Amino acid sequence: MDQTRNPAKKNPIKRVARGVGQAKRTLTRFIKKPAHAPGTSPGTLVPAPEKKSAKSRITLIAYDQDHYLKKEIDTIEEALPLKDSPTVTWINIDGLHDIALIESVGRQFGIHPLTQEDIVNIGQRPKAEDFDDYIYIVFKMLSYRDGTDQIESEQVSLILGSNFLISFQEAPGDVMAPVRERIEKGKGRIRKAGCDYLAYALIDAVVDHYFLVLEAFGEKIEDLEAELLSDPTPNSLQRLYAMKRDVIFFRKQVWPIRELLNRLVKEESPLIDKSVDVFISDVYDHTIQIIDTIESFRDLMAGLLDIYLSTISNRMNAIMKMLTIMATIFIPLSFIAGIYGMNFEYMPELKWHWAYPALWVIFISIFLGMLAWFKSKKWL
Amino acid sequence: MDQTRNPAKKNPIKRVARGVGQAKRTLTRFIKKPAHAPGTSPGTLVPAPEKKSAKSRITLIAYDQDHYLKKEIDTIEEALPLKDSPTVTWINIDGLHDIALIESVGRQFGIHPLTQEDIVNIGQRPKAEDFDDYIYIVFKMLSYRDGTDQIESEQVSLILGSNFLISFQEAPGDVMAPVRERIEKGKGRIRKAGCDYLAYALIDAVVDHYFLVLEAFGEKIEDLEAELLSDPTPNSLQRLYAMKRDVIFFRKQVWPIRELLNRLVKEESPLIDKSVDVFISDVYDHTIQIIDTIESFRDLMAGLLDIYLSTISNRMNAIMKMLTIMATIFIPLSFIAGIYGMNFEYMPELKWHWAYPALWVIFISIFLGMLAWFKSKKWL
Amino acid sequence: MDQTRNPAKKNPIKRVARGVGQAKRTLTRFIKKPAHAPGTSPGTLVPAPEKKSAKSRITLIAYDQDHYLKKEIDTIEEALPLKDSPTVTWINIDGLHDIALIESVGRQFGIHPLTQEDIVNIGQRPKAEDFDDYIYIVFKMLSYRDGTDQIESEQVSLILGSNFLISFQEAPGDVMAPVRERIEKGKGRIRKAGCDYLAYALIDAVVDHYFLVLEAFGEKIEDLEAELLSDPTPNSLQRLYAMKRDVIFFRKQVWPIRELLNRLVKEESPLIDKSVDVFISDVYDHTIQIIDTIESFRDLMAGLLDIYLSTISNRMNAIMKMLTIMATIFIPLSFIAGIYGMNFEYMPELKWHWAYPALWVIFISIFLGMLAWFKSKKWL
Amino acid sequence: MDQTRNPAKKNPIKRVARGVGQAKRTLTRFIKKPAHAPGTSPGTLVPAPEKKSAKSRITLIAYDQDHYLKKEIDTIEEALPLKDSPTVTWINIDGLHDIALIESVGRQFGIHPLTQEDIVNIGQRPKAEDFDDYIYIVFKMLSYRDGTDQIESEQVSLILGSNFLISFQEAPGDVMAPVRERIEKGKGRIRKAGCDYLAYALIDAVVDHYFLVLEAFGEKIEDLEAELLSDPTPNSLQRLYAMKRDVIFFRKQVWPIRELLNRLVKEESPLIDKSVDVFISDVYDHTIQIIDTIESFRDLMAGLLDIYLSTISNRMNAIMKMLTIMATIFIPLSFIAGIYGMNFEYMPELKWHWAYPALWVIFISIFLGMLAWFKSKKWL
Amino acid sequence: MDQTRNPAKKNPIKRVARGVGQAKRTLTRFIKKPAHAPGTSPGTLVPAPEKKSAKSRITLIAYDQDHYLKKEIDTIEEALPLKDSPTVTWINIDGLHDIALIESVGRQFGIHPLTQEDIVNIGQRPKAEDFDDYIYIVFKMLSYRDGTDQIESEQVSLILGSNFLISFQEAPGDVMAPVRERIEKGKGRIRKAGCDYLAYALIDAVVDHYFLVLEAFGEKIEDLEAELLSDPTPNSLQRLYAMKRDVIFFRKQVWPIRELLNRLVKEESPLIDKSVDVFISDVYDHTIQIIDTIESFRDLMAGLLDIYLSTISNRMNAIMKMLTIMATIFIPLSFIAGIYGMNFEYMPELKWHWAYPALWVIFISIFLGMLAWFKSKKWL
Repeated sequence: MDQTRNPAKKNPIKRVARGVGQAKRTLTRFIKKPAHAPGTSPGTLVPAPEKKSAKSRITLIAYDQDHYLKKEIDTIEEALPLKDSPTVTWINIDGLHDIALIESVGRQFGIHPLTQEDIVNIGQRPKAEDFDDYIYIVFKMLSYRDGTDQIESEQVSLILGSNFLISFQEAPGDVMAPVRERIEKGKGRIRKAGCDYLAYALIDAVVDHYFLVLEAFGEKIEDLEAELLSDPTPNSLQRLYAMKRDVIFFRKQVWPIRELLNRLVKEESPLIDKSVDVFISDVYDHTIQIIDTIESFRDLMAGLLDIYLSTISNRMNAIMKMLTIMATIFIPLSFIAGIYGMNFEYMPELKWHWAYPALWVIFISIFLGMLAWFKSKKWL
Repeated sequence: MDQTRNPAKKNPIKRVARGVGQAKRTLTRFIKKPAHAPGTSPGTLVPAPEKKSAKSRITLIAYDQDHYLKKEIDTIEEALPLKDSPTVTWINIDGLHDIALIESVGRQFGIHPLTQEDIVNIGQRPKAEDFDDYIYIVFKMLSYRDGTDQIESEQVSLILGSNFLISFQEAPGDVMAPVRERIEKGKGRIRKAGCDYLAYALIDAVVDHYFLVLEAFGEKIEDLEAELLSDPTPNSLQRLYAMKRDVIFFRKQVWPIRELLNRLVKEESPLIDKSVDVFISDVYDHTIQIIDTIESFRDLMAGLLDIYLSTISNRMNAIMKMLTIMATIFIPLSFIAGIYGMNFEYMPELKWHWAYPALWVIFISIFLGMLAWFKSKKWL
Repeated sequence: MDQTRNPAKKNPIKRVARGVGQAKRTLTRFIKKPAHAPGTSPGTLVPAPEKKSAKSRITLIAYDQDHYLKKEIDTIEEALPLKDSPTVTWINIDGLHDIALIESVGRQFGIHPLTQEDIVNIGQRPKAEDFDDYIYIVFKMLSYRDGTDQIESEQVSLILGSNFLISFQEAPGDVMAPVRERIEKGKGRIRKAGCDYLAYALIDAVVDHYFLVLEAFGEKIEDLEAELLSDPTPNSLQRLYAMKRDVIFFRKQVWPIRELLNRLVKEESPLIDKSVDVFISDVYDHTIQIIDTIESFRDLMAGLLDIYLSTISNRMNAIMKMLTIMATIFIPLSFIAGIYGMNFEYMPELKWHWAYPALWVIFISIFLGMLAWFKSKKWL
Repeated sequence: MDQTRNPAKKNPIKRVARGVGQAKRTLTRFIKKPAHAPGTSPGTLVPAPEKKSAKSRITLIAYDQDHYLKKEIDTIEEALPLKDSPTVTWINIDGLHDIALIESVGRQFGIHPLTQEDIVNIGQRPKAEDFDDYIYIVFKMLSYRDGTDQIESEQVSLILGSNFLISFQEAPGDVMAPVRERIEKGKGRIRKAGCDYLAYALIDAVVDHYFLVLEAFGEKIEDLEAELLSDPTPNSLQRLYAMKRDVIFFRKQVWPIRELLNRLVKEESPLIDKSVDVFISDVYDHTIQIIDTIESFRDLMAGLLDIYLSTISNRMNAIMKMLTIMATIFIPLSFIAGIYGMNFEYMPELKWHWAYPALWVIFISIFLGMLAWFKSKKWL
Repeated sequence: MDQTRNPAKKNPIKRVARGVGQAKRTLTRFIKKPAHAPGTSPGTLVPAPEKKSAKSRITLIAYDQDHYLKKEIDTIEEALPLKDSPTVTWINIDGLHDIALIESVGRQFGIHPLTQEDIVNIGQRPKAEDFDDYIYIVFKMLSYRDGTDQIESEQVSLILGSNFLISFQEAPGDVMAPVRERIEKGKGRIRKAGCDYLAYALIDAVVDHYFLVLEAFGEKIEDLEAELLSDPTPNSLQRLYAMKRDVIFFRKQVWPIRELLNRLVKEESPLIDKSVDVFISDVYDHTIQIIDTIESFRDLMAGLLDIYLSTISNRMNAIMKMLTIMATIFIPLSFIAGIYGMNFEYMPELKWHWAYPALWVIFISIFLGMLAWFKSKKWL
């Protein structure tokens, strides 16, 4: 059944790509289907589309204040001995297409089938769900892909247990690298804190990245603003529209995070220590700030549209003025010339010696008079 | 009294159909009357308009972990022996026009007259009502009818009792088929679970279908987007408007489902087991996602309208430019030609030998000068 | 003081009526003054403007499961003996201009002066007020008056006591007739139920009538839609605006009913039996459905405005195209003709034998070339 | 510091007044500064700008069911003996510029410095504040000043104590006159009730006056509507904009009153008797009605703008049609005339005897044909 | 990592600055990054960009009802002896770039690392956070910089302890000067009150300053209004857009203060005395008033845009009228002249003696007739 939908999804992309330049992003990121086909049993895992890595990579990091261990493992079973140790165990899995792996993780760590389904289904809305034994947190990593104009989104899932944290990413990325480094070097309080703090640190790293996207976006608005105020083209509107789509997309990803963080603080799960609440509140504040800024951007973009539309109107005015000035000056002159082009036998003026030069004087007077009149009306 | 309304309702359809192509869907789906005529006794059943099947079809499925029974029955009385058995009894009724049948079901299973009225009245707003003995759930199945552009809606009612579930559909459909199959094959947990899980499975199947509609809709927006950016016609606007109507309709059907599901979880009816809550929350999340996407579509469509309107303006600009360029170049030239068409006796230039060729030089210079000037103003 | 306001209110109507056709409804239905002049004592009764009936009509209906009595009475005192009987006593009063009558009803049934004022002041916002001894319910009956395009509104007040219900209408109407008939014929549960159910039945009858208005409105939107898509005139906009006013008015009357019904259920007055709650919830659902539909209509009408505006723009484009094509083709041709109309002595072409036919060839080539060019630009 | 702001505030008024006619109201009513300069001690009283009266007038009214006393006094000290008497004491002070008076009132009646500041600062947002010993209520009296188009606002403050009520007005007005009269004549229940009822009566008098403003406003909308539908001018837009400003202003004054009244009922201060609640609820209902109507007006005015804008567009269409018809008819005719104005030696037609009359036939045929064609396109 | 972002941020400013005049403010004030680079440890302090002062200035003020001490100190350690004294100790720090200083303050007064980070990160959203030992309050000081059109924002942080208050500003400013003076001179109740009152006084001083900005803004709207109604230019739109940006910015800074103040009252921290609540409510009221006015401004600016757009349309109409009048009058005249410029041999009129003067009569009649006709259509 998934097959029937795929071709449908690829066609419009081609169709759009043919005629259009700027806005050829697809709407597919707005429509995320549930991983299972309609009506099939929930908890049926459908592999996420493969990204860069051919094989899922499992990285194991275990640490407490005094110890630190990091290694890449091949099967999740290698991590099991650490499951009951008092250290913090962080298992990071890159790649969501290896269903067998996800299922074995699920089995070993007691993860609900619905959670497993959510992990591999990359169309999740950011949310936090408390399953008593663990908290499931899912949200999006956003970044501008190099060389393109497009916001990339990648889904990150966290399984926060009492002494372990499992993170799932679509592909290996570098957003989590600074956190890894802080653990390795023992910087800050991270080595002294538990899994809950680690989860916070990862969310914080991702949310901080949103600011980069926001900044890039702000620059694009400023560029467009400069363009619109100096020399707008129909292309400007297409860029504005493409940006509108991006803002809608961005907003859709960030809004639910607010709720997610709010839940983590309010639900008072034993898995999250009170001392971590103040940090989560801090990320919460950042999220509010991002949302505020997105809303401001929306308002600004509405203003940009007004500028664009009125610029078109102003141009039309300029064109019409040009035409009107030319027509208004020369139509009467042509009429006069037409009169003396008539072939009547009895037209006394035609015989007058100074008629022709006099007419030139009249022509020039009318011409100059008209110009002066347009000047006085500020049309020139 | 119902008669007085019917003709009124048919006329506009014809009238619309005459003049218009794209948007000839009727508004009737927005106006759903209560099943009984104004002022008559509530609980009076008025048969729903007949759909495909001439006779209502009753399908009985009874199962538990070890047993499975499926048969078509003619009267509801045949199902009564199962009413008090510990198995899950699912009675599905296709067709709402057989009032006698609905009433006998109501009598046998103790269904409130208002609920009976709601079942046959296909204009219900999705809702869940707890009547202690049973929970009444009503919502809409949506699909794009093959070959047409139109969203079809069909009302589904569920009566969820302690060990039975009665479902009512307007016509036999295939949305519930996968659920039936899962029961038959014993796939997933459905055979181990109760009526509440069955109700969830049916709602889930319907909500999953919304994603298909959403996807089809997304494709239509993309098509329109491509069209608007390359070559918009007045027809594009009509399509946009028709899509706007569809979105309004879609939204009206999906929004209340959110509340419906929220109620099922919050009201803590003994008819719904705690273990099913997590599944209902899952459908709830899907509904939120669908609503989010619909809202995004609305935003996008507003953007498309802006593009359409500014494209019209841009075209006007292009047309006016054309006219202005032609007029501005040739009006002065014509004037000069007019001057030397005058019949004055004393026009010395007329006698000059090189006057005519010289004038050609002047004509061409003005022509080229004008062109250059328009180029410099970027009008060409 | 009321006098000072009346002339002011009549003038604008005339003024509007002079210049305008379609939208000559007055705004007066939006501005309803309190019945007493500013600053005078609250509870001062000012008679409502007389409607059709010259004299208020009092109809008395008393019933229980086994008995039924109906008669028209002249003074409220005739009804007093029934006040303490166990039967349900329904007193219906048509006409609000007989202040003395209202006051005597107030005295006899212990109705608060503010309630009395609200009954005769036909500008009430729908509401329900619990005065312990009775519940005061006021709302509007809406209908399209025959032959006109206008929504008529009539105020209905209900005084719901423990064993009596007094209803006040501006004029005798037929909305309540089916309820009266159900009582008379003993149809449904109405004869077995109390005053609270009777109040519900009356509200339900009125709300059901809203669907008729909604349907008529939907037809008007469809008509306008067809007109706008085929051949919009400035008149279409006036119709759209008139409909916008109607929707605003309709909405203003229906929205508060939602709150009204919600209150009846939530406040748990001893005057309303629990068993009636489910019926009130049913009317509540209908109200929500009506509000939903009104909001959809607003959205649709915004879409219609867009269509209208862009149609105007498209027409302008068509007109300008026409002008541009004509001017662009003939202006150069005229210029060429002008050249050979010049009177220079030395114009060699003028002497050539084939010059004139050759010019015709040139003219026709330019003409056809231009046509082809416009075709290629899709202007033709 | 206040000085630095005053000139700034006066300049723009002049500037606006110079160029503009209709909309020369100042924005100053939107910007109300706190009475004290930024950073100075709160409770510092800055006198309100003097209005009509040079000297503040103090009117003392004391009454109970049997007694009535009214006199004008010079100093607040004269009223002190009544402070502890069981009668209702109403002190009305007209004029807020006499700081010494306000301060002595404050001292004598134990009024908080912040309240004193609020009384003289005429830029208060309507509100009710419970200071245990008294309730401070502040709101606005609105009226259309005679002969002008402008909504006047005047601030009214009430200090409601256990047996006294002090009211402050900017200038002597007649809004409170009917209340005074009711007390004097002992009409209604006012003489039997306490201070709380008096406070209600004053608020009610002011709110009732809002209906007058609303009515006047409704008339203006109707006038404008008639003008826009028959013959809109650029001036109409300025009137619409001025009305928009008035609505914004009106709305800003009325909205908070809703909250104010809600508070009076909800906070259950011992200063307000339960029996008065029903009256306050009545004013509350009126306020809701006024707000509803204001919102309707906003909607209507948005509709008026649409009409205005599309009328401009329609006019443009008419103008362009005119031009296009003239140009399209005469440009080809002129071209033909131009052809036979050419001076070629060999133009056989020129010699034909019937050529000239034949050409006239052609001219007239083209002319009539064109007219018929435009008729068929409904341009004429 | 901060380096990678800085160049990106500077470029757009230049780009914007090149082409544009009016609106060259940067968007950077909308995008405030967290002080630490994404993924680094929270609590890492990144110095705020240096403002005017090279060295942070620490001012110490200690007072109670009878004592007053003020001195500038070099290190925070000098203030420590006062930490436990019963007097109110106010430490004001100007300049946020001296990380070492902030950190030592943090150490000495037990300030949470996250708070320290927030203090130096000038992109905070206004908020109040209760850390039990102290309340952290952060908000913005806004002012129009002299000579420019731009709203300047400066971040102010307050640490409110039980007997000390530490305030942080980006640069020495004069907003707090009046508060300092009130303490010095012992004006008002400030010397009798505690730290909480001092915090209130500072917030009040800043909020009062918002009114000045609001007033300046109101003047700008009035100027623009006058310009738009008399003689709008494309530049007016740019000013309108720049003002829209300012309003968005202003709003973003003021809205959260409402919540901030609400929290201070609601959370009932022991650090804030009940008696101060009434003062905080007063500032709260001011904030609501400011927000109300901002919203009114937004509405007004939307109205201004409508005026601008319709003025453009009206101008276009005027231009087109001009053109149409000229063309409509002279095109037929030219045609007639063209006819008698034809060279047919048999054109009887050409021989008639009075033909030429008669034609002049016709010309003038047509001309005057046309004028009269345009007059009657009100085009002239």
